[in-house]
Amino acid sequence: DDDRYPSRFWPEPRITERRDPVVHGGVGDGPLDEAELRFYRDNGYLTFEQLIGADELDAYLAELDALRRDEAVRQAAEAVIEPDSGELRSLFEVHKRSAVLRRLCAHPRLVAIARQLLGSEVYLHQSRINYKGGFRGKEFYWHSDFETWHMEDGVPAMRMVSCSVSLTPNTPHNGPLMIIPGSHQRYISCVGATPEAHYLASLRRQEVGVPDDASLKQLVEDFGILAPTGPAGSVTFFDCNVMHGSSSNITPLPRSNVFFVYNSVHNTPAAPFCGLPPRPSFIAERQDFTPIQTEVSP
Amino acid sequence: DDDRYPSRFWPEPRITERRDPVVHGGVGDGPLDEAELRFYRDNGYLTFEQLIGADELDAYLAELDALRRDEAVRQAAEAVIEPDSGELRSLFEVHKRSAVLRRLCAHPRLVAIARQLLGSEVYLHQSRINYKGGFRGKEFYWHSDFETWHMEDGVPAMRMVSCSVSLTPNTPHNGPLMIIPGSHQRYISCVGATPEAHYLASLRRQEVGVPDDASLKQLVEDFGILAPTGPAGSVTFFDCNVMHGSSSNITPLPRSNVFFVYNSVHNTPAAPFCGLPPRPSFIAERQDFTPIQTEVSP
Repeated sequence: DDDRYPSRFWPEPRITERRDPVVHGGVGDGPLDEAELRFYRDNGYLTFEQLIGADELDAYLAELDALRRDEAVRQAAEAVIEPDSGELRSLFEVHKRSAVLRRLCAHPRLVAIARQLLGSEVYLHQSRINYKGGFRGKEFYWHSDFETWHMEDGVPAMRMVSCSVSLTPNTPHNGPLMIIPGSHQRYISCVGATPEAHYLASLRRQEVGVPDDASLKQLVEDFGILAPTGPAGSVTFFDCNVMHGSSSNITPLPRSNVFFVYNSVHNTPAAPFCGLPPRPSFIAERQDFTPIQTEVSP
Repeated sequence: DDDRYPSRFWPEPRITERRDPVVHGGVGDGPLDEAELRFYRDNGYLTFEQLIGADELDAYLAELDALRRDEAVRQAAEAVIEPDSGELRSLFEVHKRSAVLRRLCAHPRLVAIARQLLGSEVYLHQSRINYKGGFRGKEFYWHSDFETWHMEDGVPAMRMVSCSVSLTPNTPHNGPLMIIPGSHQRYISCVGATPEAHYLASLRRQEVGVPDDASLKQLVEDFGILAPTGPAGSVTFFDCNVMHGSSSNITPLPRSNVFFVYNSVHNTPAAPFCGLPPRPSFIAERQDFTPIQTEVSP
């Protein structure tokens, strides 16, 4: 089999070069201009301060609150519950559960940008809401999404983009997304074999697919750390392989976002490269690769 | 007895006004000018970007490393060990253990500022080093130092100043000290009786003397949050009652500081206001109130 990004096989971590382009489309293929495409290629992310309007935002926030309060939702397999507080931390596959969020994932502007970055039609690999409460919001440790999506879901190439729609302000203090800009150009092969049904534990606290200290130190020395901040309604696109994480949130300001992973229709998953059965489809779509159809832009 | 700042007595939190001045000295009493004194009075803190020189810093960092590596130090009662990692998180009473750090606590510039802010001679109520490692550095939840120093150590009035000397850079990302500027003008009475020998647990994870969510929300709405950043060698003075805390640190950049608490010689501790025996003298000096003598300034 053709594993271009092996990980979790060797007793020592390895850093290798990325073997795929970062930007797969060109200037004429979508709304991003040359400077934006170059920024994304060099840094692995792109932030828009106000891509979602205030009236739309209110609808998404109301939907989020309704989902958080719904006991059936909290009991669902798609829900990740905070072990200490019992609060809902994440909910997967929201585009199937909520018509409002299904509409957001097909937002013409978001999809146009995803198509341009990936240079093809796109489908939805994953959707979720993340809720980091105030006061006791937990950290997310550093990781490359692609490492897991490749090893545990079988996605072959780096031709995916994540899109985080902030429903609350991101300040420097409330545990914002931290990115190591440029880290998407390298691949950190992690140490440790994948346990069976790893996702049951890893969604709460990841133990495998975690980059080692020395590699992270190297990345931060070479590239530094950035944390895009902005008001509610800001949107960050980031490459599937950019190293990112977030600190705890002790401020009273919660952080909520809706998170979509767009994948190129030319990059659909194979068998997981870790050799185990694939994760459930609510975490990684494996059947429906229908290109997203956007509504006509208003 | 005359408890002007009761806490931990009532079933509900209470917010009351501060009953002591913030700045006790005047412009002629030390190196701070009128703008600096006003800033400290209004915000409850004051940061100096480069108060400690690079050559001095190296000596303090070397001392810190030596203390961290010393197994006898790790076994000492004055040491606080991280439960998960086994790493040294804090070490108290460093001015007695280390000649180098004893010299730092009597640094002419630091003591002159403390004297001016407190309007009297000062003595050392507490000294410690804090070490927040990279990657897995733990958060410190919000607290007013004075609430604990009053309830558990018996310090009667808000006439104390903390001084944090940064031995490593403070960035927005490595879990810097966060301050709610202006919060020192109010006193948050906390809920929950003090357990006996509370300090044994509270130095690791505080459960009593913790401000409630609603009060914190109010403070942040009224005052916001600030996190002074700066290079190694920067120094922050902050009022004993200003609400402060810090997030976790997943960056590779450790955060180390030396921390001195200067108290006015007119504000020496009485019996603890919680009614229990006082904490050990390595946390709160109860016998030696000799005013700090500074070396002659070079």
